[in-house]
Amino acid sequence: MKPSNPKGTRDFSPSEMARRNHIFDTCKRTFQKYGYQPIETPAAEKRETLTGKYGGEGDKLIFNVLDSGDYLSALPENVDRNDFKSLTKAISGKALRYDLTVPFARYVVQHQNEITFPFKRFQIQPVWRADRPQKGRYREFYQCDVDVIGSRSLLNEVELLLVINEVFSTLGLGNISVSINNRKVLAGVAEEFGIADQFVDMVTALDKWDKIGEEGVKGELEKRGISAEVVSNILKYAATTDLGVLGELLGNDLAAKGIEELNAVMQPLADLNISNVKYDPTLARGIDYYTGIIIEVKVDNFPGSICAGGRYDDLTGLFGLKDVSGVGVSFGADRIYDVLEQENAFPADISATTQLMLVNFGEAEASYGLGLVSRLRGSGIHAELYPDASKMKKQMSYADSKSIPFVGMAGSEEMAAGKITLKNMSSGEQQSVTEVELLDILKAHQ
Amino acid sequence: MKPSNPKGTRDFSPSEMARRNHIFDTCKRTFQKYGYQPIETPAAEKRETLTGKYGGEGDKLIFNVLDSGDYLSALPENVDRNDFKSLTKAISGKALRYDLTVPFARYVVQHQNEITFPFKRFQIQPVWRADRPQKGRYREFYQCDVDVIGSRSLLNEVELLLVINEVFSTLGLGNISVSINNRKVLAGVAEEFGIADQFVDMVTALDKWDKIGEEGVKGELEKRGISAEVVSNILKYAATTDLGVLGELLGNDLAAKGIEELNAVMQPLADLNISNVKYDPTLARGIDYYTGIIIEVKVDNFPGSICAGGRYDDLTGLFGLKDVSGVGVSFGADRIYDVLEQENAFPADISATTQLMLVNFGEAEASYGLGLVSRLRGSGIHAELYPDASKMKKQMSYADSKSIPFVGMAGSEEMAAGKITLKNMSSGEQQSVTEVELLDILKAHQ
Repeated sequence: MKPSNPKGTRDFSPSEMARRNHIFDTCKRTFQKYGYQPIETPAAEKRETLTGKYGGEGDKLIFNVLDSGDYLSALPENVDRNDFKSLTKAISGKALRYDLTVPFARYVVQHQNEITFPFKRFQIQPVWRADRPQKGRYREFYQCDVDVIGSRSLLNEVELLLVINEVFSTLGLGNISVSINNRKVLAGVAEEFGIADQFVDMVTALDKWDKIGEEGVKGELEKRGISAEVVSNILKYAATTDLGVLGELLGNDLAAKGIEELNAVMQPLADLNISNVKYDPTLARGIDYYTGIIIEVKVDNFPGSICAGGRYDDLTGLFGLKDVSGVGVSFGADRIYDVLEQENAFPADISATTQLMLVNFGEAEASYGLGLVSRLRGSGIHAELYPDASKMKKQMSYADSKSIPFVGMAGSEEMAAGKITLKNMSSGEQQSVTEVELLDILKAHQ
Repeated sequence: MKPSNPKGTRDFSPSEMARRNHIFDTCKRTFQKYGYQPIETPAAEKRETLTGKYGGEGDKLIFNVLDSGDYLSALPENVDRNDFKSLTKAISGKALRYDLTVPFARYVVQHQNEITFPFKRFQIQPVWRADRPQKGRYREFYQCDVDVIGSRSLLNEVELLLVINEVFSTLGLGNISVSINNRKVLAGVAEEFGIADQFVDMVTALDKWDKIGEEGVKGELEKRGISAEVVSNILKYAATTDLGVLGELLGNDLAAKGIEELNAVMQPLADLNISNVKYDPTLARGIDYYTGIIIEVKVDNFPGSICAGGRYDDLTGLFGLKDVSGVGVSFGADRIYDVLEQENAFPADISATTQLMLVNFGEAEASYGLGLVSRLRGSGIHAELYPDASKMKKQMSYADSKSIPFVGMAGSEEMAAGKITLKNMSSGEQQSVTEVELLDILKAHQ
């Protein structure tokens, strides 16, 4: 039987790794430039840390880890061995993390006395979900989160929007559009039109705007029993993209506060000549814990968002630490990968390979060649000597498959003359060079 | 209840991350310089991929992942619900990887048609073991493996020994000692002295030499029923550190082949003036799959090895692909971390922090400051603006706790004069500078 990896998971080959690392390294470098610092948490959390945090449907998608040893021997009497929920609770004390947000909240509460707030952290690690595998959806995938916790200043939102712009422009994606809204404005809309108790219904319907359009949202709202007059008012709100006009439409304090916050974020961006961040009244972000500004990034001609997040006021409250406000965004590495592929935006020279492969002609030549590549490496050149004295064709095809740009040949004649025959693999051109010239050529191509 | 991470696992804070990344980045850069390329495999493998590969004791330490959904509903009749082994097999199709070696073998067999051999790969990922947690032993820890598979050339062993030297000298650990031996020589010893059927007993005893010394090994060998004469011969072998003399002691072909291989590795190292690799007849490496050269790296004044590995001839045979020889070593990141701490060998400026924090004096100053840090970032400077207009003491202590080297102050007076007051946090010195001067100072300190 041919071995395989579990469904919904992936192996990453060297060329895929090079592309993924291009994305992660760009994120990391940018985050650090802005003062965010890395943390990591364990793959498995205690089961009780995760359960109940993602709603009933989310809980079902958590992968539980079986306790080691004979987990049945010490099973309490009251466990129903025929009920999988009761049994799971008894035999599985740990579960694989479902996202990076809840482990981060746990981390902050657990280490609150060691942390200097505001705490600017980023975290790039895999998460696991028992989703049904399908195109673009995996059971193991990386999240790439950047958050600041312990500061209510809207400068944090501004900084995150700058981070977003810098990450995507560094990745060569100039054509992104960034939408922002404020959950306070959405709550103000519900209050203004007397449907505060149907806030979740409204948000859920609005959240689908991108997919089903105005008519679809109208239908969704009506289906949820919202009156025609209120639906009409909501649609009027959704058509209002000017924050000044919006202030006239919504008179309550909550909406006013939300609009004030949006202006406080938009103004500094305008001062910095950043024009791709737009207020979008239909942006809603279904996730429960957002309480302020929400953010979503899209790219032309590609469905779904590639980065999203927002302000939350009580994430650590889950673990007993109240009144710690935070804001963060998550970069969707897999989607960004697909966009960069589609746009042909990965750099051509991205694969992490050596600059020179030296052909192996046999024992004496290999001994000489080992000294040569060692000296090159000493000068910072990435170089390798083919390990076996295989046929030339096999050695050349190795260099070719690894996209190594130069192949060096030092046979007995070259050794005697103190020369190396250097082949440029893209032009096919060959020249005879001294070791000093070789080093110069390779340095020039670094 | 205060939340916590599962026992045997760890959270990594920003300062720990900076130190760990220093180790991993040094490994990665060196591996790539020598032509090794990264791969990654999923955290969970199919259970059958892992079970039976680590011996009975190893199997017990594998963490199994519960199937999602109602795993009891479809349980076959023949499963004994009261036997944990029978039940585990039925309700857990996946398990967390125990090492990187078996997943690598699975990867090579699965992707054999996409891989160009020899395949030089490295892999840095966590593994999980249900060991009893204790000082220095964790249930989740990173392995850092580098292997070449599909080449029998001993140049690969030589290259790995060069990689080892470069990694540790780059990390500032000059005082390592590298031992090598050959399992063929050990097999030759057992054959020579007529105890081929007790090869494993002999290897297991010799493997303890470092801990229990010559007398201890003698006792271990005798306890295993090996005759006094043979024990005396084995000890004579163990005292012979000259490969020429060893050749006279061991006349059989297997030992001769092993000695020839050792010479073929030692000679090129001598040619390259590498003097810290020594032949050690007592090095045995208990792991079953080694069949040729074995390698172990130690550092003065620190127990145990910090890097080890060897040649294996049939790793992929586990998954049906025969005759693929490979050789590799594994760097013990946690131990290396402890050694660098003990030796005070982490660079002082290692923490990934910004170079400048700008004090936040209020709305107008923050707006000006945001422009300033944006321009600095545009010039490649890592800089941050404190998000809140908090008390000076709080802002300074934030910069201090993050070890940010410079703090900038631009209040209304400075803004009017086009100046920034710059404080050097280590000397305490303050000076008034223009933005151009500020950039020069920060660039000079990069």
